[in-house]
Amino acid sequence: MTIGIGLLGLGTVGAGVAAILSAPAGRHPLVDQLRLQRVAVRDLSRPRPLELDPALLTTDPEAVVQDPAVDIVVEVMGGLEPARSLILSAIAAGKSVVTANKAVIARHGQEIAAAAAARGVYVLIEAAVGGGIPIIEPLKQSLGANRIQRVSGIINGTTNYILTRMADEGALYGTVLADAQALGYAEADPAADVEGGDAADKIAILAGLAYGGGVERSAIPTEGISGLQARDVSYADQLGFRVKLLAVAQSEGTDPDGTEQLDVRVHPTLVPKDHPLAGVNGVNNAILVEGDPVGRVMFYGPGAGAGPTASAVVADILNIAGIRQVGGPSAGLDPLLAAGSWRRCRLVDPAVTRHRNYLRLQTTDQAGVIGRIGSCFGQEEVSIQSIVQFQASGGEAEIVVITHEVQEARFRAALTAIAALPDVKAVAACLRTL
Amino acid sequence: MTIGIGLLGLGTVGAGVAAILSAPAGRHPLVDQLRLQRVAVRDLSRPRPLELDPALLTTDPEAVVQDPAVDIVVEVMGGLEPARSLILSAIAAGKSVVTANKAVIARHGQEIAAAAAARGVYVLIEAAVGGGIPIIEPLKQSLGANRIQRVSGIINGTTNYILTRMADEGALYGTVLADAQALGYAEADPAADVEGGDAADKIAILAGLAYGGGVERSAIPTEGISGLQARDVSYADQLGFRVKLLAVAQSEGTDPDGTEQLDVRVHPTLVPKDHPLAGVNGVNNAILVEGDPVGRVMFYGPGAGAGPTASAVVADILNIAGIRQVGGPSAGLDPLLAAGSWRRCRLVDPAVTRHRNYLRLQTTDQAGVIGRIGSCFGQEEVSIQSIVQFQASGGEAEIVVITHEVQEARFRAALTAIAALPDVKAVAACLRTL
Repeated sequence: MTIGIGLLGLGTVGAGVAAILSAPAGRHPLVDQLRLQRVAVRDLSRPRPLELDPALLTTDPEAVVQDPAVDIVVEVMGGLEPARSLILSAIAAGKSVVTANKAVIARHGQEIAAAAAARGVYVLIEAAVGGGIPIIEPLKQSLGANRIQRVSGIINGTTNYILTRMADEGALYGTVLADAQALGYAEADPAADVEGGDAADKIAILAGLAYGGGVERSAIPTEGISGLQARDVSYADQLGFRVKLLAVAQSEGTDPDGTEQLDVRVHPTLVPKDHPLAGVNGVNNAILVEGDPVGRVMFYGPGAGAGPTASAVVADILNIAGIRQVGGPSAGLDPLLAAGSWRRCRLVDPAVTRHRNYLRLQTTDQAGVIGRIGSCFGQEEVSIQSIVQFQASGGEAEIVVITHEVQEARFRAALTAIAALPDVKAVAACLRTL
Repeated sequence: MTIGIGLLGLGTVGAGVAAILSAPAGRHPLVDQLRLQRVAVRDLSRPRPLELDPALLTTDPEAVVQDPAVDIVVEVMGGLEPARSLILSAIAAGKSVVTANKAVIARHGQEIAAAAAARGVYVLIEAAVGGGIPIIEPLKQSLGANRIQRVSGIINGTTNYILTRMADEGALYGTVLADAQALGYAEADPAADVEGGDAADKIAILAGLAYGGGVERSAIPTEGISGLQARDVSYADQLGFRVKLLAVAQSEGTDPDGTEQLDVRVHPTLVPKDHPLAGVNGVNNAILVEGDPVGRVMFYGPGAGAGPTASAVVADILNIAGIRQVGGPSAGLDPLLAAGSWRRCRLVDPAVTRHRNYLRLQTTDQAGVIGRIGSCFGQEEVSIQSIVQFQASGGEAEIVVITHEVQEARFRAALTAIAALPDVKAVAACLRTL
């Protein structure tokens, strides 16, 4: 039995997929049953890094979707449209879809999942999060016995590269970003990475799988690293932390009607150096899943790149090909692989969530300042872990506070009172702490 | 649709499985379709940590296997027999099996797999390696597009606990072992753990899945940690390494007839401190998989314990239950999940494998010793990375050599020549280096 593959897009990931399919030796024998039948490209005349029969190429993606020889449609063109429409068109044609498109899934995942369920086909997305790291399949198939308490991860390689170099070299954000752009680790317009939007797309997807229901992507509190100062990375280091851009989805209990309450967010975070995520450096990604009864498991690897992403795409193709051998194209869906929603989830009010915080204040260098700051926290019952004066010169000082886990609303109230103290010149930085 | 589960064994893992099945809320909804139908125990009168209907219990494991209400047999009794016979009996009865029994699978995996393939049922073993860490499923289903170059891991929690404390405290092996026994991290008879046999069982299983063919368990070169001296852990630390008991399965190319040549081994190994495996401490496990095109991915988590292991067992049950919904009990097998052999593998002659080595020599404290040692290596074309004299007193010295990657036979030849030098009092330690 051979399975026809139609490829939408022949960029780095698409070419990586084609390269695997054209050299099956040494891979799982099921790879040898996959046949590349049709490939949609933007420009037929563009030179390609790999040799493909020119007859396979077309500039009409809909022709790929509708080709009767194509059983599985692989969408690796990126962007919201026409990707979304082509995915829906493939589903309507009764074809399973494999996509690496996190933006489409994070925004239109529920529409796409509903269409796929109605038509009895799969839409698999291993490549959408964590590049080559197997994380989608394990969440769907290997951790289903667990009540998931928290999913937290470093899921954007560009920002992790920047943060790693800032920590290792004491470099400025802008300097490292320019380097990353020159090296191809960051886009010319880096906003989606450095402002946290890419990580928010991905944590929305992971939360949906871990908790069995979608969350509203646009409502996820998201803070990037573009405002991060080298000074805070350095102070964090001296206090025993690495600064990482974490994406977190955490259970906050269940409403009486069974709706799962989730605290989902993206922000730069101080991670203790002995924490498994602290050692994840460069463009690597890692996702930590905490559940009952499994405890803490972590998945680590290259978060992007043609090879790793193509590995994940072909894994999804193989899963669909494998399950075809169970019951043929008209059989039922495996509920684990299909991963439909099974409960309602909602985002909690950020004001009632609880976090540890890192705060840097510029103050006058006078006796009693620390006491007055401490009193503001005390009045809001915000418990402090450490308060350290880092620098004092010219009558000014820098004070860094790390709190215990406190309710966000109370922390913000204390912060308002602190900002109003005559001793306090500025709230210079406010970050989260694990 | 409900699926009947029969449990062979109600020890810590069996009780953990029963606890998950009896409290499905908040887990994947498929858990709620699993029904515990029969449980084989050794002693009916023994008090249990969880309440079970006494009518479910029997002292006759064959009655569980043959019970028509039992669709999936879960073997968590451990040991080679009667576990092996009961697994085969369940297969013969047309029932899929889930087992946590690494010893049975490492020794009788091919017999069991052949029986399961012939009968069209699954034998799933996620819990046999790495406790709660999803590693079996990812190897079978998420990394199938890759040519696997190497699988290396810390897959025995007991020895990793001992090595972590030896490194952190400078403690002696015997002292920490006694502590580990008192804490329940090591068995009264610790041989299977500390001599490397448990890790060898597990790497045999991982190699079989990663490379698509079984290897002869009894031929795997295996060295444990019982001879490891605190001094070598300390020297390794000073040279920038952590000592870990690594299990490794590495591709060494393909014979002309397509047989995959594998270098599979278990031994204490110096791991550079910046390597992802170096930070895996205590009873945690981690498995690093290197493949083309995925690169390096790592799976980390608790390697043992009732909760993590039960999570893995129930994951396997869910996989079988999920695939039942595709085609019913008489459908075909998913070749990825069934994971049959697809090529021949053989172990290479250890003499032709290549490794980096750590060597500690006790020598006379005389000028020229290092030169004479260096000459012995040079004559065998063994390239040296570093050679350091650590201690000199009373006319004696300790010299530590770290080689580059060299052929084992040449290294051994050099070692024989070195041991015969009049300056060399003893070859005090010989370890591998990553």
